[in-house]
This record gives sequence, C-alpha cells and structure tokens, in this order.
Amino acid sequence: MATAAEAAAMRQAITLAARALGATSPNPVVGCVILDTAGTVVGEGYHQRAGGPHAEVHALRAAAGRARGGTAVVTLEPCNHTGRTGPCVEALFDAGIARVVYAVSDPTPTATGGADTLRALGVDVEQGLLEDEARAGNIAWLSAAKSGRPYVTWKYAATLDGRIAAADRSSRWITSPESRADVHRLRAESDAVVVGSGTQRADDPHLAVRGIEGAVQPLRVVVDTEAGSVTPGARVLDGAAETLVVVAEDLDVDLLVETGAGEHWMLPRAKGGRGIDIPSLLAALHARGVRSVLLEGGPTLAGAFTAAGAVDRVVGYLAPVLLGAGPAALGEAGIGTIADALRLDITETVRIGPDLRITAVPAVPAVPAVPAVPSVPAVPSSPKER
Amino acid sequence: MATAAEAAAMRQAITLAARALGATSPNPVVGCVILDTAGTVVGEGYHQRAGGPHAEVHALRAAAGRARGGTAVVTLEPCNHTGRTGPCVEALFDAGIARVVYAVSDPTPTATGGADTLRALGVDVEQGLLEDEARAGNIAWLSAAKSGRPYVTWKYAATLDGRIAAADRSSRWITSPESRADVHRLRAESDAVVVGSGTQRADDPHLAVRGIEGAVQPLRVVVDTEAGSVTPGARVLDGAAETLVVVAEDLDVDLLVETGAGEHWMLPRAKGGRGIDIPSLLAALHARGVRSVLLEGGPTLAGAFTAAGAVDRVVGYLAPVLLGAGPAALGEAGIGTIADALRLDITETVRIGPDLRITAVPAVPAVPAVPAVPSVPAVPSSPKER
Repeated sequence: MATAAEAAAMRQAITLAARALGATSPNPVVGCVILDTAGTVVGEGYHQRAGGPHAEVHALRAAAGRARGGTAVVTLEPCNHTGRTGPCVEALFDAGIARVVYAVSDPTPTATGGADTLRALGVDVEQGLLEDEARAGNIAWLSAAKSGRPYVTWKYAATLDGRIAAADRSSRWITSPESRADVHRLRAESDAVVVGSGTQRADDPHLAVRGIEGAVQPLRVVVDTEAGSVTPGARVLDGAAETLVVVAEDLDVDLLVETGAGEHWMLPRAKGGRGIDIPSLLAALHARGVRSVLLEGGPTLAGAFTAAGAVDRVVGYLAPVLLGAGPAALGEAGIGTIADALRLDITETVRIGPDLRITAVPAVPAVPAVPAVPSVPAVPSSPKER
Repeated sequence: MATAAEAAAMRQAITLAARALGATSPNPVVGCVILDTAGTVVGEGYHQRAGGPHAEVHALRAAAGRARGGTAVVTLEPCNHTGRTGPCVEALFDAGIARVVYAVSDPTPTATGGADTLRALGVDVEQGLLEDEARAGNIAWLSAAKSGRPYVTWKYAATLDGRIAAADRSSRWITSPESRADVHRLRAESDAVVVGSGTQRADDPHLAVRGIEGAVQPLRVVVDTEAGSVTPGARVLDGAAETLVVVAEDLDVDLLVETGAGEHWMLPRAKGGRGIDIPSLLAALHARGVRSVLLEGGPTLAGAFTAAGAVDRVVGYLAPVLLGAGPAALGEAGIGTIADALRLDITETVRIGPDLRITAVPAVPAVPAVPAVPSVPAVPSSPKER
C-alpha cells in the first residue's frame, strides 16, 4: 500500500510531468519525486525533452546522496532499455533506491519490463497509485503507443449557433482574447497544429505559439491537397516554427517548387472522397515523431477527420454570440441521420473570459482504452527512442 | 435597515413567488411573508392566479391575528388599486401591519403608489431589500410592463456543432430525456409557446406541458404565415391546452376554415421580409395577456425574432453530439458581418444529464433595464388587472 507521502509525491510528479507537454515527443511526459526513508521529498524532476535525461535521472541528481534507502515515485514505469540515455532501472538501483512506486505501466515493447527488472534486483515495486490521473496526463502518448497514430484534439471556436464566421466570412473576433490565449496553451501542448487549405486561404493563420515562455513550437501543418493555398509570404512560412505542406501525391512536383514552402509531403488522396487520406497523413506524422495533433480547422478538414474516426478529443470555445448565417464549425463527416451521429461525453466545461470552453471525448473512444498490460506485437514496428 | 429576519423572509418570499411562474399573467408573481413583532414567521403566501387573492392577502390570512404590529415582507410593492380584488395597502393596514419591506417598486401606472399610501397611513416602509433577486424572479412581467410586449426566451436544442437535426432532418433525439424534461419546466413557466410552420410540419409538436403537476398550460402558438401547416389531426389541436394559429392577414379566410384549428389571428406580414411581422405578433399576444413567450423554433422564426430585436433571453441545450450536416439552430437574422453579431452575456451554465444548458442574455438588452422608478406614461395603455 502506498503511503500518504507517496500519494502526495505522485500528485506532484503528475504536475511536474505536465510542464513538458508538447516538448518530449516521441517520448512521454514523465515526472518523478524522490522521498528519503522518512518520507521527506529530497528530489524532483521531469523529462524535459527527447534525448535529454529522464525524469528519474533529474530527480536522483537533485536528491544527490539522500536517495539511498528511499522511494522513487514516478508517473510511468521506469524504462528498462538503453536509448539515447541509459536505462532508468539501473540509475535507480545504483542510487540505492529501495522502493519504486509508479502509476502507469509502460506499454511500449522496447521500454517495458522495468518493474520486473527492479524486482529482480531486490527493489520493492508498486504499480497503480493515481493511475487514472497519470494516464490522463499522458493520454496523447499512451493513445499513440496503442494506435500508431497521433492523438487528435479537434479545436474549434464558434458562436452559440455553431458558426465559425459570419456570412461575409469575417471572423475576427468571435471568441475573446482570453480564449485565444488559451488556444496558444493548447498549441504549446501539441506536437503539431493542422489546418486545411480553406482556413489557410481565409485566415492566413500563423499557427505558432505566442505568449508562453519556453514553449516548444509545434510543427505547423497545412493540408493543401491541390497545392497553391500556401503562397509566398504566407505567415506559416516565417521562421517561428517548422512548417509542413501536405499535397496530393499525384500533383505535378514543379507546382510545389513555385509555392516556396520548405518541407513538402506528397500523400495519397482520400479513397472515394475529397482531400488527403487521413490515416496516411496521421501515420506519416507519427513516423515523424508527432504524438499529439491539434486540429484547428476548418470545417472541411474537421469533417474528414471525424469521418475517418480520427478525433480523440473535442475542445470547443463557444462565444456568447449569435450570427444566424455563416459557415458551421463542422462540415460533411459522412453522417446522414441522427442514429449515426458521433456521440461524445462532456469531460469539462470552463468559463474562459466571456466564453465557454467545452471539452468532450467520443463516448466510444476512437482508440480503445489503453490496457494496463498491453498486447505486445511480435516485432516492434519502430525503434523506441525514449 | 432591514433585519436578518427580514432578509431571510424576503428570500422565502422570492421562492414562494417563483412557484406561480407561468400561472399569474397578466399579473406578476408575488410572494409575501409576515413576521410578528419578535421577527418570527407567522404567515406566508403567494399570488397563485390572476383574479385570485394577492400574496399579501394569502399571507395575512395565514397569520390570522398574529400580524398585528408585525412586518410584511413582499417581493413587489403592495398595490394601491382595486382591480378584481381590493388594494393590498388597505388589507395590510387593516391587519395592523406596522412595517412593510418590499423589494421592487411597482412600475405600472394603475397599481403604483402603494408605498406612499402606506406611509401616509403611518406604516413604516422600506424598499430595495434583495431587489436584484426579486427583479430577476419577475423579469418577464417587469420587462413586459416596460416594453408593452412579452418577454421572449428563445430555447433551442442543438449538437455541439450547432445542428438541430441531421441531414435527413431526423432529430429524435439529439438531447437527453433530462433536457427534454427541463424544457417542460420552461414551458410551464411561460404564458405562450411559439413555433413556426417549418417546425410544425417537420415535428408535429405537442407543445403542452407534461410531467409537471399543477402546471398551467401555456397558449400554444403556431406562426403559420401561409396557412396549411396545421393540418387536421395535428397534435397541437388536441385538448391539452389552448392553441392559436397565426396567418398572414391577406390570406383567403376560407383557407382557414379548412384547417380546423380553433383560434386564428390574421396579422400583417413582415415589412420587406418573409413571415409575420414580429412586433405585431408580440403586441397582439401582450394584448391577450401573454407576458412571457417561449420561442421553441425553428431556425427561420428564431432568425426573425432575432432580427426584430425581440429575444430577451437564450436558453440553449447543447448535446455532446457531432453531425457535420443538417439545419443550424438559428437562421437568417439580418446579420451579414461579424461587427453586427448579436453579443450576449452567459448568465448560467448547468449540466442537465449528459447535456449542457447555457443561458445568456443580450449584452445590450432588447428591453433596457426596468428602472426602479419608471417613467409613467400620461395615459395608461391598458387597464391593469392585477
């Protein structure tokens, strides 16, 4: 049984882990707190970026010699393998840690097994403390580990009557400065921000994070199936963050050179539909290390993601505004009748300035819940670089 | 200064008044609590229906002889005139009440002056205790007294993406049983429930209150400009409540006879627009005694009310559902660009089962705030029948 001190330490570890959301992919966020034999906190740490020290190593360094005989409280099962850094189980054992309490088992084939190794080394190990909270804090990475595609949050900002712009397409501003600042936080927590050609043409969005110190910029992705919507001088082409333009694979390559954008991907078209094939896009982003995607619009692309069953979370900013005309937040999603509607569960509603932020997840998750002990594929599909 | 006992009594009086919402028009809701000289509650009452005893009379009866020397705490200024019942100021004086504490002044020309009369009779009078709360509880009647038209609540039920039905017009059910039960409460609190011909044709709604014991049924109003949408056998034509069908004044009267509906009004068409002239409709409803209207749809009629500046409150039931296609909650409202959007303030958000109920009022009220001391027209526009 975990002690009260360990539970408090786990809460703190979860909070620490959250600091690095959006900065660690393809790795998870992890927090670690070291308690000495008396249950006093002697070290804290979190995984800050892929390739950098793991949470446990940060925390052990902070604890210096005081970790000996103590307890390591970690949000994720300590890793068992040597990637860019050595295995954490070794570091914990070498520091004289007598007990390890972790919340969530590592589902990845290369890193799993840490608990067993620690036990074999004589360390007392307990799993499951605040598991749900820790899982929620790592949902994107856990979901991606299960599905092989990034976790997708669809964000929209609309009026009470569901419009994202007026009849003349004017939309600045429907939501408040407070809501727009909140979106920057969402971007900072995401590995990639994705828009379609309609939004690119209508809004010339910047898509980088502003106003959040130390934020790791997300990859800016414009799904520009027919090419041509990202024109020279587009704001996404500035140096604030990396930018990727995705076009259909059957386009003339010369067309792309003209646009001037840096990274281009040519991907298959959707089968029997308009636009890029969403599963192909998500698989390619995953292969590039993207574990969380913030889908910022517009309605056509959001409809395509919804139709593809590729929306894991919805964050809607509802402004207390009525328009009565103008484009809707969500376009054609292949739903023709009420029985086929995508049903969600509201997980949170918060007032953001004058607006309301509603968070919801599909009632039947797009990616089924990640089991505590996952089924491990016979052959790892890609090297794990945590 | 009001005492703590008086403040508690006023809270109770406001609660008592609310019991009769939807049952007293064209009168206000009023609650009254009588305290004896020791500050003990000795009588409670509320105005239950137009033509019946006023709140003060109910409370004095309950107090019997114990009111002498005591305090009457009332949500609205006691009336000064003889309508279907005698003036309350007389009843209070005759019962030996020494002090009257009321929240809101009576703005109507015929009933006002009660406070002055009481003072002239030697009664101690104080105004303003919990005035905002009492005003909110009587908002429909106060607003209607100021504007000469009923207070309009637009209710809609939509998906997170603002749809009221799927692409094939199926809409049963978007919201939960809990939300639909809550709508019956809204209906019970309203004097009239209004729908347009589109909703009449699509849904054949019943519009009566079900599941609320003792509820006074609202007047069911179908705005059927071109006639013909209320066909024999329509559910609004049953005996559950009164029904009124409104058609354009230039229609052939023979057409109406065929429909079989009971009460018909012929009203002017909207100037330069489709449908009935909304101010004319509201004025006629007011003249019939309607002080609160629940506008239940659909998008076309809601757009017309919005365009006419005749929405005083919005109650939206948002279901955590995505459709991506289908009609929007609000239709053409004469708003072409974002600068002309109707801006609201959210006053409440509540979870109703799995859904979210959002209440909002125009940031610039359709009817300016009713002043404590209203401007009184030289000639009363209609006899006051409180």
